Amino acid sequence: MQEKTNQADTNPAPPTPGPLDPGLYEALVAQVAAWGAGYLRGLPDRPVRPDAKPGDTLARLPARPPESGLGEPGWGTILADLDRDIVPGLVHWQHPGFFAYFSCNASAPAIAAELASATLNTNGMLWATSPAATELEMRMMDWCAHLFGLPESFRFDAGAGGAAGGGGGGVIQATASEATLAALVAARSRAVRAGAARDRVTVYTSEQAHSSVVKAAMVAGLADHPLDDGRVRVIGTDAALRMDPARLAAAVRADLDAGLVPALVVATLGSTSTGAFDPLPGIHAACEGLGVRPWLHVDAAWAGAAMVCPEHRAFAQGIEHADSVCINPHKWLLTNFDCDLFWVRDARALTGSMSITPAYLRDEQSAAGRVVDYRDWHVPLGRRLRALKLWFVIRHFGAEGLRAHIRGHIALAERIEAWLRDHPRFSVPFPRSLGLVCFRVGDDDRQTTELVARVNAGRRVLITPTSVPLVAGGPPQPVGRISVGTTTTDARAVELLLAELGAAADAVVQSAP
Amino acid sequence: MQEKTNQADTNPAPPTPGPLDPGLYEALVAQVAAWGAGYLRGLPDRPVRPDAKPGDTLARLPARPPESGLGEPGWGTILADLDRDIVPGLVHWQHPGFFAYFSCNASAPAIAAELASATLNTNGMLWATSPAATELEMRMMDWCAHLFGLPESFRFDAGAGGAAGGGGGGVIQATASEATLAALVAARSRAVRAGAARDRVTVYTSEQAHSSVVKAAMVAGLADHPLDDGRVRVIGTDAALRMDPARLAAAVRADLDAGLVPALVVATLGSTSTGAFDPLPGIHAACEGLGVRPWLHVDAAWAGAAMVCPEHRAFAQGIEHADSVCINPHKWLLTNFDCDLFWVRDARALTGSMSITPAYLRDEQSAAGRVVDYRDWHVPLGRRLRALKLWFVIRHFGAEGLRAHIRGHIALAERIEAWLRDHPRFSVPFPRSLGLVCFRVGDDDRQTTELVARVNAGRRVLITPTSVPLVAGGPPQPVGRISVGTTTTDARAVELLLAELGAAADAVVQSAP
Repeated sequence: MQEKTNQADTNPAPPTPGPLDPGLYEALVAQVAAWGAGYLRGLPDRPVRPDAKPGDTLARLPARPPESGLGEPGWGTILADLDRDIVPGLVHWQHPGFFAYFSCNASAPAIAAELASATLNTNGMLWATSPAATELEMRMMDWCAHLFGLPESFRFDAGAGGAAGGGGGGVIQATASEATLAALVAARSRAVRAGAARDRVTVYTSEQAHSSVVKAAMVAGLADHPLDDGRVRVIGTDAALRMDPARLAAAVRADLDAGLVPALVVATLGSTSTGAFDPLPGIHAACEGLGVRPWLHVDAAWAGAAMVCPEHRAFAQGIEHADSVCINPHKWLLTNFDCDLFWVRDARALTGSMSITPAYLRDEQSAAGRVVDYRDWHVPLGRRLRALKLWFVIRHFGAEGLRAHIRGHIALAERIEAWLRDHPRFSVPFPRSLGLVCFRVGDDDRQTTELVARVNAGRRVLITPTSVPLVAGGPPQPVGRISVGTTTTDARAVELLLAELGAAADAVVQSAP
Repeated sequence: MQEKTNQADTNPAPPTPGPLDPGLYEALVAQVAAWGAGYLRGLPDRPVRPDAKPGDTLARLPARPPESGLGEPGWGTILADLDRDIVPGLVHWQHPGFFAYFSCNASAPAIAAELASATLNTNGMLWATSPAATELEMRMMDWCAHLFGLPESFRFDAGAGGAAGGGGGGVIQATASEATLAALVAARSRAVRAGAARDRVTVYTSEQAHSSVVKAAMVAGLADHPLDDGRVRVIGTDAALRMDPARLAAAVRADLDAGLVPALVVATLGSTSTGAFDPLPGIHAACEGLGVRPWLHVDAAWAGAAMVCPEHRAFAQGIEHADSVCINPHKWLLTNFDCDLFWVRDARALTGSMSITPAYLRDEQSAAGRVVDYRDWHVPLGRRLRALKLWFVIRHFGAEGLRAHIRGHIALAERIEAWLRDHPRFSVPFPRSLGLVCFRVGDDDRQTTELVARVNAGRRVLITPTSVPLVAGGPPQPVGRISVGTTTTDARAVELLLAELGAAADAVVQSAP
């Protein structure tokens, strides 16, 4: 309509070109695409991380916004400034030498999908505000439940009436932290509906669980940090850093004796530090033995991606006891950030804890309960069309391609683990977990810490230091952590990593006092 | 590194092309860009909303994911399926005839920025995980504080030591709902640190506030819905639907008498139904008169964008009393969803309520408090590089271009209001607020409801029904609501809207019993 108006002589002339003019869109997208291809081509030759001091980037950016715009002719300048002022100060999460944290998995199909989604810029807060956005997401959640071999109770298409009828289903959240919060709120709401006082509910997780569990409890009003006399019980782990069901049982019993209401257990499949898997059957049995059934949320944010391979599902034994599960394709399944998949067995328990419907959001289909309104599945109201990237990614790669991606990375991690075990200077304190390998330099805390710092100082590869008990109940000790999961990481990148590790180990040991 | 490995004969051959191969990237982005330009060109000729029944889209999508991928040769099919199976089922939020809800403002520069951001796919959870991502965001928050004329206490560059030193600053949240939750959690935390019991804090907002306030209270554990005996006080409004400071004072006094701790007032600048502005000076005075200073959060998610124009800042009088403010450029400032700007006066109050630092996220700069770690400013841990779209948008349009965008839409809304006031069948129950115009058909509830339904049934324009008291304290009655704010909406679209309104009014009145 903009272009037409340009030719209409009865209307005031709009700015030329309009902000969403198709020609402007084509020109700017083409320029950024050319920039992006250049960035990706040069990526392996960049340092993986910057040599940045606080304030370096701030100093490069003007203090005040420009009064006049550059318009389309200014995009050469804008992209040159991006390359000069911003890119050198980034950590390159798509760099083949990125072995830190857990990866953020970009892929060409997912990036293209993000472009399509931004072009539509539709808001699927309600079914009625974009029916196809909601239904595509429902179908993608079902597809992924199939891909990962989840129990059918998590699928929309398995229930009679789906979400509205008390069945299960899934939703895309931005991050696993938000999924954990949603699980906590749903679990508390279920307990309150069953008669519990809101401030008497308790939450259980392991010492090795992600920090987001305590954070969710803080946000939900169950705890302050450092952990006070709140309602979060951090359960000790065994020698393999898995939640100890016996200690869980003891904590639940103590709370029951105190008149509290165990409402939620957050179990982790693939802990952040070492990739440990909490024993779901033991956790379920511990609660059942005490006659309680707290909501069981399974955080498989990272490791869950491996469940696309049938040979990597044993760690999820007992998942049929879960009330909710989350898996993040943005970590390891070729789908750009943000994309956390969150399934619930009883969708009404979740929506009952989140739903508020004011007049301006009421419509016929919602009122009749015939449709899924995703605004009631998470904290945000508005939402992007993130399901599009799952659709494009799954259709581009197929289940086979996704499996090949995971298997390739696990094979690389096997190579790293074998190398570390063979190397005289290294020890492997915990067995490799999928793509995650932990190591120490001999049995030396200081040398381990120093080695990680030295490897990272080279800026050719990036790994992460962490700190965990090496014996059950022991004090945390330094451990180096190598996570294979970046889209571009290949055998060559791994050989470079091993060379860096070997050289750093020699230097660290030789410089020992 | 992928391409090089393709030529290396010592390594196993990776899949060809790799998932992030630059050539594949160029090919897929070009195809989607061509699709996107075609979508935008055809947009004005599409119905603004689908004629969809629940399940229509689900029925078009296979129940199971494909085993084999289509790869690059399949993208013709993928994009054809997008056009056939998904696009017809969307509401077109960028359609010039979209006058519903509040808009989601796409623009070519913002879309191009989303492509760049997806290409980098970096994760700025900590300063150290991408220093330039964090510092670009800090600078953009300061730029926007300048653009909107916010008090300098909300800027990083105004404080001695910024966030770490107890100064102010801002962060991009996904949505205003999340900003409200963050404000609530920070406010409660501040009250608890000052000695309040966690379950004794109270929250105040108006009857016309966004549903996200009660939702945030539910998530934070202060209330259940329908509102129970929790800690949220919904304050009545005056004839203009603004929070009544006298009633606020009465509610605060009652809570103080009951030994409760008023911790948060959420004031709205530009309410969702009618664009009402709560009186910040009166709200501040009401609390001050009782000797309390609850956290004042100002939700200017929609209307705040108009503050880029100095002539549209009077409604924000008293904002110097605010502890936090949110404004959403994704609603009305040419910046794609999601982009909610959230400023706090005392960053430590916010980060103190959210911060948890496990070993694998510890680093030297964070530990020294020298940098901003945005993970502590909201619920999510991981985060996209959303600051890039602000940078591109502000540089492309300049402050002048953003002002022209707002002024153009307000002029269109003035035209609509004048037409409605002149038209014998319509009445305007509340004065236009910026780009938002409310109307009724005469003074008839049924005809008003019927008219909105009839206009929307034509699918050429989309407006929203709402329901508000027409006299102070009266029962809610139906009101039609026209929001001018979509990027592509121009004079031609407005004339079409008016024609649709006129025809529908004739039909509704003539068919009256």
